[in-house]
Amino acid sequence: MKLEQGCIQIYTGNGKGKTTAALGLAFRALGRGMKVFMLQFMKGGGPYGEHAAAERFAPDFTIIQTGRPGWVDRDNPDPEDARLAREALETARTALTSGEYDLVILDEVNGAVSFGLLPVEDLLILMEQRPLCVELVLTGRNADERVIAAADLVTEMREIKHYYRAGVPARVGIEK
Amino acid sequence: MKLEQGCIQIYTGNGKGKTTAALGLAFRALGRGMKVFMLQFMKGGGPYGEHAAAERFAPDFTIIQTGRPGWVDRDNPDPEDARLAREALETARTALTSGEYDLVILDEVNGAVSFGLLPVEDLLILMEQRPLCVELVLTGRNADERVIAAADLVTEMREIKHYYRAGVPARVGIEK
Repeated sequence: MKLEQGCIQIYTGNGKGKTTAALGLAFRALGRGMKVFMLQFMKGGGPYGEHAAAERFAPDFTIIQTGRPGWVDRDNPDPEDARLAREALETARTALTSGEYDLVILDEVNGAVSFGLLPVEDLLILMEQRPLCVELVLTGRNADERVIAAADLVTEMREIKHYYRAGVPARVGIEK
Repeated sequence: MKLEQGCIQIYTGNGKGKTTAALGLAFRALGRGMKVFMLQFMKGGGPYGEHAAAERFAPDFTIIQTGRPGWVDRDNPDPEDARLAREALETARTALTSGEYDLVILDEVNGAVSFGLLPVEDLLILMEQRPLCVELVLTGRNADERVIAAADLVTEMREIKHYYRAGVPARVGIEK
């Protein structure tokens, strides 16, 4: 099915649940017969649980991981990180404007902008290129004010309590 | 697979993404071969997109909707709403302690407590009964302070901008 009215949603903030909320949106949309494209920035590690689960919905759910394994050094990102992020944005643009997908998720794209891997202007242009029937979801910390201004719905995930601080490591099946 | 260390996660606040974050956690866990039980309080309407999608993972993903269709009147809830919520909590307790599930999600349970349909003490007892290898996720607005104190991870979804205010209705495939 096609959406009559697509919107732009943002999940930002330092709390947990940004990527998982986007995955939940994908899950619900798939249940309604929509086609979903998710591109993950700066997530070359894995595969994670969501990649195995996505296979159950093939060919309706495509998840693409981009970036190098490991963390990007936000104070001094490698030029290769920026090159991969720019390449990923072009892949996202192709999917967004292809007419093939009803829901397009750019996971961690706000982080890629905030780390200086992508100019915010390039993301703003992509947002303008969204066909009206496509839902676009952007996740990641530190969403730029101009990106927030151009979105329809913005939620901040605020950390009240986090178990990382209590020494609980990232767990297979929950965090990854 | 089994978790060595299960935790209690809460998604609360007035912003979007609480139920969808829980669905995303389910999706990731299913990809890792876990078994997931989700019980939705005060959600007799539907079915929603997540119910159709869950069938792809049967028998590993069980979603149960409880409550009457329509909204609960928070100022004057019907005794039937309270009866159904109490019954649902017993169903949840059975699932939580059965040893069958790795991830148990009580969707909108915080709302059910906040509406006076469930005594907070009953939810606190259920949290104590959680086997250590089970991840328990509680969603819904207005999580009680005592419930927050007993949880390991708490995220507040804070509404920065919501398209309901701009007149966008709940859409099939996105909100339901």
